[in-house]
Amino acid sequence: MEVAGTVPLRDADDLSLAYTPGVARVCEAIAERPELVHDYTWKSGTVAVVTDGSAVLGLGDIGPEASLPVMEGKAILFKQFGGVDAVPVALDCREVDELVETVARLAPSFGGINLEDISAPRCFEIERRLQERLNIPVFHDDQHGTAVVTLAALRNAVRLTGRDLAALRVVISGAGAAGVAIARILLGAGVDDVVVCDRRGVVSRDRDDLTEVKRELAEATNPNGRTGSLADALAGADVFVGVSGGTVPESAVATMAPGAFVFAMANPNPEVHPEVAARHAAVVATGRSDFPNQINNVLAFPGIFAGALQVRATRITEGMKLAAAEALAAVVADELSPERVIPSPFDPRVAPAVAAAVAEAARAEGVARL
Amino acid sequence: MEVAGTVPLRDADDLSLAYTPGVARVCEAIAERPELVHDYTWKSGTVAVVTDGSAVLGLGDIGPEASLPVMEGKAILFKQFGGVDAVPVALDCREVDELVETVARLAPSFGGINLEDISAPRCFEIERRLQERLNIPVFHDDQHGTAVVTLAALRNAVRLTGRDLAALRVVISGAGAAGVAIARILLGAGVDDVVVCDRRGVVSRDRDDLTEVKRELAEATNPNGRTGSLADALAGADVFVGVSGGTVPESAVATMAPGAFVFAMANPNPEVHPEVAARHAAVVATGRSDFPNQINNVLAFPGIFAGALQVRATRITEGMKLAAAEALAAVVADELSPERVIPSPFDPRVAPAVAAAVAEAARAEGVARL
Repeated sequence: MEVAGTVPLRDADDLSLAYTPGVARVCEAIAERPELVHDYTWKSGTVAVVTDGSAVLGLGDIGPEASLPVMEGKAILFKQFGGVDAVPVALDCREVDELVETVARLAPSFGGINLEDISAPRCFEIERRLQERLNIPVFHDDQHGTAVVTLAALRNAVRLTGRDLAALRVVISGAGAAGVAIARILLGAGVDDVVVCDRRGVVSRDRDDLTEVKRELAEATNPNGRTGSLADALAGADVFVGVSGGTVPESAVATMAPGAFVFAMANPNPEVHPEVAARHAAVVATGRSDFPNQINNVLAFPGIFAGALQVRATRITEGMKLAAAEALAAVVADELSPERVIPSPFDPRVAPAVAAAVAEAARAEGVARL
Repeated sequence: MEVAGTVPLRDADDLSLAYTPGVARVCEAIAERPELVHDYTWKSGTVAVVTDGSAVLGLGDIGPEASLPVMEGKAILFKQFGGVDAVPVALDCREVDELVETVARLAPSFGGINLEDISAPRCFEIERRLQERLNIPVFHDDQHGTAVVTLAALRNAVRLTGRDLAALRVVISGAGAAGVAIARILLGAGVDDVVVCDRRGVVSRDRDDLTEVKRELAEATNPNGRTGSLADALAGADVFVGVSGGTVPESAVATMAPGAFVFAMANPNPEVHPEVAARHAAVVATGRSDFPNQINNVLAFPGIFAGALQVRATRITEGMKLAAAEALAAVVADELSPERVIPSPFDPRVAPAVAAAVAEAARAEGVARL
């Protein structure tokens, strides 16, 4: 990865334009009309990929420096798929207040903040407080990127099998960043019966061991007041969404409703092997590139940020996420099969389609500045 | 400016190397052996160009966003002249404690910190505290970049005219970031008689209106206990170094010693017009590209950081700055004339020569890790 100039710097004239004294006129113009920073600098096309290294992939809390390779990989994908310039920012601090304050101080240099690999439940508060404070998009990809791609795959699974999204009974295994965000986007998309399970089983209102985020989740989900284990919840369910890293025995999958959808997205080991799941399910997806239907965040974040930056959105709303999922699903809507409910990460139609839908939704929701 | 990938990303195999799951092995390796971050990420070749926008060029306190064009220009010069990747970081905070804390939190992502356009006297404390805390170079270019290039020009002026550097009587107009650093590097280079003037005249021990930094300066400089105005100090002086933005009348320049050196470096208006100065001086330099002998920081910072990063120096010592000045001067030592005591910014010999000297000095001073 490198930072490269995009203007020539060949002689003293170029130098005095790019640097002193010429640059002073650009600074003065922005000082007089602050919105010109979007036109005269790289800010409006540039995203900070921010982490504290507290929840990196499946590796856990490995600290900021060891997390840098993920942030760099992400930055390269941002550029390749979305044309977005992205800068890895791995922060050496852990308190929520410190993280919020630090990212807010950095914000003048960037057009958006992509939060990454920050442990739950801290990630929820950090994202919320930053978005309240800043007038640029703040987006925790481990939450919303995963949620958008999951919803897109589910939309196409429904489309393929002629079912009704709203009528599905969905069980999510995992109540961390991804699980919470998937539950929320499914509720936003009209799914009524969503049940979330953590390590102790179904997240229900009668439990007294819940964090604040899980208490909210218990209020918003599980309309039929289910209790018990993940296996209990799976009996008769239409959809399994795994973002837990645990394992689900074949016997539990076998109790699901006929024509079930199994999205076993844990990496590198799916909660249930896709070939095993396929014995009982109509559509199977994983997080891996070596099986069909890879639920990969790269299908979402480059296009979402590209669209948001294009219209200088001040935030990424629920409507923009839903629009991203619709657009992503639509890319392969005419090519559906059980092994193809989601596009390949290298499908060149994806990012432009997602970006256009997100930009349009931002305008419709009144958060676009262009 | 853009962030570009330097590895191909053509298919699913490339993707699973650059991102999950392949990237996990790189993260694990760094978590086990932290020093591998230098080999496996862009950290060791990347510098943050950090400002709070409090003292931007001659424009003053225009804030972080309006300062971004300067940081971008700097980043492009870093790349073009030193091969160093640089990221603009304009911070929205003003307290010294906040700035120090914020930059320290950012440090895991970067191999060095270039401070820029931060107002004096805050800049001195910020740099000192950051360097005490971090094990990567922290370098305030407005101080040390200017000081290194000034010393290089002075070395060659001395070489050209057959004089003795240590015996020169030097008057510096301006006790801000640049003036203080120039005084210090000249003392370090063996010049005994340095007098610094601020707006109220000579900085001397008998004044009771001095900041802490100026009190230290009064102790370290002005060995003959001069007092009075800048014009008083100039009478009989061998060297005038202007980094003030004020003006010096021709009558004052005329009182300098025969064969004087006049470095009138204020931008865009030199303290005395170089053609006027030339009537009384043997060597004249300015900060401008349209007169001979441009004292331009770009002659220093790309090579200094390139050299420091190359050996993974933990800091930039006084010895490394002196070595940079020597190497910079040596580039044109065989081509000297009154109009050529310093190389052109586009001289391709400059950055490699400075980098090599800085790397060698870092090793000699025991601050190199390679």
